[in-house]
Amino acid sequence: MFIGAQVSLYPMTSDFVGVILSGLEALTPYRADLRIETDDMSTLMVGAPGPLIDAIRDLFAGAARQPAHVTMHVTLSRGCPGEPDDPSCRCDVLAVAQGQPLPERQAEALKSVQSAPNLGVEIDLQFSLYVLGQDRHMDEIYGCIDFLKASGTFLKSKNFCTRLRGDAGAVFEVLRQAFLRFGPAEGHVTIDLTASANSPSPR
Amino acid sequence: MFIGAQVSLYPMTSDFVGVILSGLEALTPYRADLRIETDDMSTLMVGAPGPLIDAIRDLFAGAARQPAHVTMHVTLSRGCPGEPDDPSCRCDVLAVAQGQPLPERQAEALKSVQSAPNLGVEIDLQFSLYVLGQDRHMDEIYGCIDFLKASGTFLKSKNFCTRLRGDAGAVFEVLRQAFLRFGPAEGHVTIDLTASANSPSPR
Repeated sequence: MFIGAQVSLYPMTSDFVGVILSGLEALTPYRADLRIETDDMSTLMVGAPGPLIDAIRDLFAGAARQPAHVTMHVTLSRGCPGEPDDPSCRCDVLAVAQGQPLPERQAEALKSVQSAPNLGVEIDLQFSLYVLGQDRHMDEIYGCIDFLKASGTFLKSKNFCTRLRGDAGAVFEVLRQAFLRFGPAEGHVTIDLTASANSPSPR
Repeated sequence: MFIGAQVSLYPMTSDFVGVILSGLEALTPYRADLRIETDDMSTLMVGAPGPLIDAIRDLFAGAARQPAHVTMHVTLSRGCPGEPDDPSCRCDVLAVAQGQPLPERQAEALKSVQSAPNLGVEIDLQFSLYVLGQDRHMDEIYGCIDFLKASGTFLKSKNFCTRLRGDAGAVFEVLRQAFLRFGPAEGHVTIDLTASANSPSPR
């Protein structure tokens, strides 16, 4: 399986280069576990969902601790048939989820969120989960939305996506569980997400 | 069918509110044809793909004409089974594409790109096309990538997405054709895209 993300950080300040460069320091602890390649539009990160989502979370939480309004866009993908198998992406959660009925996966997902770390940074996030290559894909999506509503981070349903709010630790754990526990364990699943912090807009 | 987008504009300048508000003026000609609702994270636009993609294009092209580095994230969706049917989203291109073999759809898509307007604004854009709810979804995606390579706007393939570059008129026409001519005409198809202009990064 191949697992990874294209990640872009957008600080809404004239010093955006400074915020991005200091934000990238948050990736240092993860560089041994992930393949990381940056071009002028996004940063590719490839690896297992443990370090992968932790790295994305810490990148955004670090930028969100600074005063400027900052957003992030991430395209997450697992199991794309067009990508080569990569042993560094091996994931125990997917191995366990294989063949597990939906209610058990929902319960495991909630348990994982309860033990998420508290990072002390409140963020907003909205995302869409896409289950590809199978009929009845909406059953898994509705099952995921039920989990989101019970997660403690659910804010509201929107057209095409679900809106979360909470501490970055809990919100990104919810995201990781949505990515791993819904859709077939060996199938092609993607997430399109945006995160936001320090927005001056009324909430 | 229900067709729409969640759109977010990100100007990398301390005057981001000014750029966003003046950018929103570009939507004025389209307000009669689209349902437009803004919250603190994104703007929902619902309607037929003609005015919908034109409005998104003009919003971004207007912001890109200003000097600041600006990016945009858009989640596009058609035919989501969870959304109600909306007569304002009726689309002749989808009616024609229904049952048409892939080579014919590729030829029609290329013809549409050749008559795209030139807006005089060069932009970068990368996107992922997701075909949901059917087996063999990669056939349509590979068929779309062949069209992108022939479109005159193809820059490179990346993991999880394809990178385009060119005039905003051509690039957004390529995007509209990818959205409408690939994947089943009556099915659930989404696009996750980011656009960028005036980046200080080496290209």
